[in-house]
Amino acid sequence: MSPSPLGAPTPDPGDRVTFLLAHADDNMVLAQRLGEWISKAPELEEDIALGNIALDHLGVARALYTHAGEVEGLGRTEDDLAMRRSERDFMSALLVEQPNGDFAHTMVRALFFDAYQVELWADLADSVDPTLAGIAARALKEARYHLRHSSAWVVRLGDGTGESHRRAQDAVGALWRYTAELFEGDADSYRSGWQKRIVEVLDEADLIIPDDPYQRSGGRRGFHSEHLGHLLAEMQWMQRSYPGLEW
Amino acid sequence: MSPSPLGAPTPDPGDRVTFLLAHADDNMVLAQRLGEWISKAPELEEDIALGNIALDHLGVARALYTHAGEVEGLGRTEDDLAMRRSERDFMSALLVEQPNGDFAHTMVRALFFDAYQVELWADLADSVDPTLAGIAARALKEARYHLRHSSAWVVRLGDGTGESHRRAQDAVGALWRYTAELFEGDADSYRSGWQKRIVEVLDEADLIIPDDPYQRSGGRRGFHSEHLGHLLAEMQWMQRSYPGLEW
Repeated sequence: MSPSPLGAPTPDPGDRVTFLLAHADDNMVLAQRLGEWISKAPELEEDIALGNIALDHLGVARALYTHAGEVEGLGRTEDDLAMRRSERDFMSALLVEQPNGDFAHTMVRALFFDAYQVELWADLADSVDPTLAGIAARALKEARYHLRHSSAWVVRLGDGTGESHRRAQDAVGALWRYTAELFEGDADSYRSGWQKRIVEVLDEADLIIPDDPYQRSGGRRGFHSEHLGHLLAEMQWMQRSYPGLEW
Repeated sequence: MSPSPLGAPTPDPGDRVTFLLAHADDNMVLAQRLGEWISKAPELEEDIALGNIALDHLGVARALYTHAGEVEGLGRTEDDLAMRRSERDFMSALLVEQPNGDFAHTMVRALFFDAYQVELWADLADSVDPTLAGIAARALKEARYHLRHSSAWVVRLGDGTGESHRRAQDAVGALWRYTAELFEGDADSYRSGWQKRIVEVLDEADLIIPDDPYQRSGGRRGFHSEHLGHLLAEMQWMQRSYPGLEW
């Protein structure tokens, strides 16, 4: 069985809840980041695409929060788990809380994360937990589409004008340091498949992986950059101000 | 034929372009406002609902911008028309640019606008312009769903706690002044159907229409509140900074 709750679910309910929440948090945080692009993307077609991708992640987050609440057995709902946990309780990876930056940053962040989710969901689609397996099977189809989308953009930007190449390379340089965290613990088994996909895309985009081996970590244990606090404040203010919208 | 380009399309291409752009702008602006709720709504289910409604409006805006560009015949694309027109050129109604405020404001604004769009699209589904008729027929189905959604929320809020009732009544009081503009010119024929629906919902919600007859207008002629400038700045900065994302 897994030594880390973030590699794959173990029979221990506490570990399973932690595992489910961490992945729910990833999707919730990324959904908010991508939702920030609605009506602000470089093309109207892209507005729609990013909006739909944000809603995909939100749907996965909802399913995982709901299931975490069931496994936990304390009566917490999806809304409780998304809206009433503090920054220190969020276990999302540092990568997804990074700000959108320019469009190149958003697409490189998406590429790194989508390629990870393709490995993750392919694995979890065989989970012994049938609910999780069902969530993963659906999420896998979505993640494959997300990855095609982000890969196509990264190639278009990296292989485009001098300026778009420079911005894409800046994004790879800035975000690479948040990738190792995705593969901590048992998730290490996802690393080689991820790396293979990423190298293919970056090669085609004429982008290079930084030499600097520095990597940041901590999100999975609740230690976040300042960005998550701001994001949660925006996400949760309404629930916190008016719990259950009882007003 | 119509004396006002905003009632129904006339055979004059300039009037038709104006008409199409005004309604495209309505949908574009509202899409951005509703997109601001993604991951910030009071319930996760509502995040998804508002996100999908935002994307519906964005889809209608895209179709109308594209068609306006075709009728105009100057080669302007949907992106040109959405992203490269100034505040003074936007002909959206003042109602849709109003800030989200609290959730009650957003839902009352939606109710007023959705009931208007149900009348509008039902009329335009019979347009002699087959492209517009097709857009309207699809948009009508969506608007009916939007109206059910906003009506249900307004009733839930108005007929809820003392605090939710107060907030919903505040929203009706604040937003009522932006409703008459929707029915200027030929659009006056939509007023009675709209009023009937609104009175039904507000009655059920135990909310009252303000006595104050003061009404604001000007959006359809390009005179906007300060809110649209901020909204367009956010919406257009990327296109304006990096036209065509050529970088």
